Amino acid sequence: MSAESAEQHPAHAPGVPVVSVIGDGQLARMMQTAAIELGQSLRLLAGARDASAAQVVADCVLGDYTDIDDLRRAATGAQAVTFDHEHVPTEHLHQLIAEGVNVQPGPEALVHAQDKLVMRKKLREIGAPVPPFAAIASVEDACAFWEAVGGKVCLKACRGGYDGHGVWFPHSEEELAELVGTLLEKGTPLMGEQKVALTRELSAMVARRPSGEVRAWPVVESVQSDGICAEAVAPAPGLSQELARRAQDLAVRIAKELGVTGVLAVELFEYLDEAGQPAISVNELAMRPHNTGHWTQDGCVTSQFEQHLRAVTDRPLGSTATLAPVTVMTNVLGGAEDPAMPMSERMSEVWRRFPEAKIHLYGKTHRPGRKIGHVNLCGDDVATTREQARLAADFLVHARWADDDENE
Amino acid sequence: MSAESAEQHPAHAPGVPVVSVIGDGQLARMMQTAAIELGQSLRLLAGARDASAAQVVADCVLGDYTDIDDLRRAATGAQAVTFDHEHVPTEHLHQLIAEGVNVQPGPEALVHAQDKLVMRKKLREIGAPVPPFAAIASVEDACAFWEAVGGKVCLKACRGGYDGHGVWFPHSEEELAELVGTLLEKGTPLMGEQKVALTRELSAMVARRPSGEVRAWPVVESVQSDGICAEAVAPAPGLSQELARRAQDLAVRIAKELGVTGVLAVELFEYLDEAGQPAISVNELAMRPHNTGHWTQDGCVTSQFEQHLRAVTDRPLGSTATLAPVTVMTNVLGGAEDPAMPMSERMSEVWRRFPEAKIHLYGKTHRPGRKIGHVNLCGDDVATTREQARLAADFLVHARWADDDENE
Repeated sequence: MSAESAEQHPAHAPGVPVVSVIGDGQLARMMQTAAIELGQSLRLLAGARDASAAQVVADCVLGDYTDIDDLRRAATGAQAVTFDHEHVPTEHLHQLIAEGVNVQPGPEALVHAQDKLVMRKKLREIGAPVPPFAAIASVEDACAFWEAVGGKVCLKACRGGYDGHGVWFPHSEEELAELVGTLLEKGTPLMGEQKVALTRELSAMVARRPSGEVRAWPVVESVQSDGICAEAVAPAPGLSQELARRAQDLAVRIAKELGVTGVLAVELFEYLDEAGQPAISVNELAMRPHNTGHWTQDGCVTSQFEQHLRAVTDRPLGSTATLAPVTVMTNVLGGAEDPAMPMSERMSEVWRRFPEAKIHLYGKTHRPGRKIGHVNLCGDDVATTREQARLAADFLVHARWADDDENE
Repeated sequence: MSAESAEQHPAHAPGVPVVSVIGDGQLARMMQTAAIELGQSLRLLAGARDASAAQVVADCVLGDYTDIDDLRRAATGAQAVTFDHEHVPTEHLHQLIAEGVNVQPGPEALVHAQDKLVMRKKLREIGAPVPPFAAIASVEDACAFWEAVGGKVCLKACRGGYDGHGVWFPHSEEELAELVGTLLEKGTPLMGEQKVALTRELSAMVARRPSGEVRAWPVVESVQSDGICAEAVAPAPGLSQELARRAQDLAVRIAKELGVTGVLAVELFEYLDEAGQPAISVNELAMRPHNTGHWTQDGCVTSQFEQHLRAVTDRPLGSTATLAPVTVMTNVLGGAEDPAMPMSERMSEVWRRFPEAKIHLYGKTHRPGRKIGHVNLCGDDVATTREQARLAADFLVHARWADDDENE
């Protein structure tokens, strides 16, 4: 398709920076929403013309994000290149930078979101709280780590894991040894991490500009189901001001020390320390808008998508003040089966019952477990808002009310 | 360009209604923002590929909205056809309906937004408050009307006026007679209306579904400058609950009686009646999202753009609850000259000073007086919020702070 410079494509308003996004999923799609209102529009490197984000952009370059020529075509004429995932090979990004492309975030930062071992080493170096971990290059390494942490082992693929993929919890040293043997044989680089007896998961999100400005959103509680984010509650219920501040400060420090630009999500474990006090340690990093930040679309002055575009083009960041006492985001994950009722009718049912529900869909077809949308709901108290958001999202998935007695 | 059915175009997610929008301006552009988040996307009938809305849609039919074949091409496969302006000839819409197209709002409603005389006759018929008016088909009609209203004449073109165009305030009977002679010779159908000694302008907006549901937003005060909307303050400051309710009820009644679907804006004059009490009369109607409703993007649970899409596809309407005590919308109208500072730098300056300011731009190039964007700002009190929104919009126009002493 398009190979001309983004500056020359009619999709872009004159005098306004063009941002090229590598990736065609819902995150890029929702960046386009923000871009439109800012008077700009995105150039996309998409795998298919009917991908989630490609459906809604005029300037779409079809190609492969692992191919340097395709990346180059997408980058031509853009003021900044950014991502909706972290899987672009860093050697290509170094090459683009050498050719004068403005890549945000840059490969030196991005590598920490690509490689869990590199990330943990760096975090330990800057004094950020991480559970004990070790590189696992052999079955011997694995067994030594098993001994060291008393069998509380979480085994992780260093690269390519997401939504629960690439994470294992072996029940015995033998199971660990066998797993490690198989995975290493396949060429999967591995690391071990001590399992955390977490009380819940939190997410601290910030945005940072290349020139240094950083802004943090309120810390949220995120609820996982089978390793996939199911829900986010903002601000995190019952989180002390002191711990919230500590989590925000930690995210700000990581953004600075790692040179992150754009949005950074720091996924955190909350656990009880030896004194029985709530404490936090870092679980994962994402350098892009993140599922736990979708609530900002309806619950904050500035959404993570707008903030990301402002940050990667080094423009002043917006207020992260909240618009309601509580905002709950609940994911719409494809069920085992797709109900006969069309999605647009399911939306109608939800709106009929909850006129305040904000439904966001990604233009994706059904697949079990697939993220196809989310519901945001603002309210005054956690319990009610949470219940309503869950009912709404659940109806979109199953075409029935979870609290309807006739379902029992 | 595209002539295939909208259902077959990859821009549209399967199983979700496709809405075709006739028009390519900022209203269609902002409908696309709403559509994206609802998991759908618009099909557009646009005059040019680089028009405001065309920049941000994948499925763009290029054509002329006065050409029935072009309209037909845009309508093919759409669940509903709607508009971002009211200039499509009603005979074409009747033809499309005869061919099975779902046109919302339909021509029977739309004619009241196209022809000011038809509208006033209908409003008088249903008992809605309108100033005294008369058809003016000759200079004699004009002079008779001058006498009847004691020289307080506002002369209007029945069709095609907008933003102050097509409205005249003659100072003498001779001036009126000459004006009417010239205009009638050009073939301009005319009407006269008694000038209202208005205290201010208000706007009452509602959305209505074909199946009947109606929801009203809070009534706003709108400030005009040279016949163009400059500002909207929501809710209208100092408006009594009783008069606000009356304005909302009036808008609901007009929507029902005229069979309006989608968003209806009822522009109102507020004036003092014979008893010195505030009263309202209808000025204009618009059957689409309206400039005085832009504040809903950031100040309401449901924006007018999302509501319009839900209404024209006959889906349940969303909450019109506000998110802040006050929201001010200020238009960004091209100044006499376009400042040397690029627009993206002007945006940065505004954001640096007002991190809460929501800037919306339309991807339009500079032209004096042209609507190129608007600023929304939520706040706690009218005076401060208004002042800040004005400063922000003014900076985007002139690249200087209106309150900066160095400008004096």
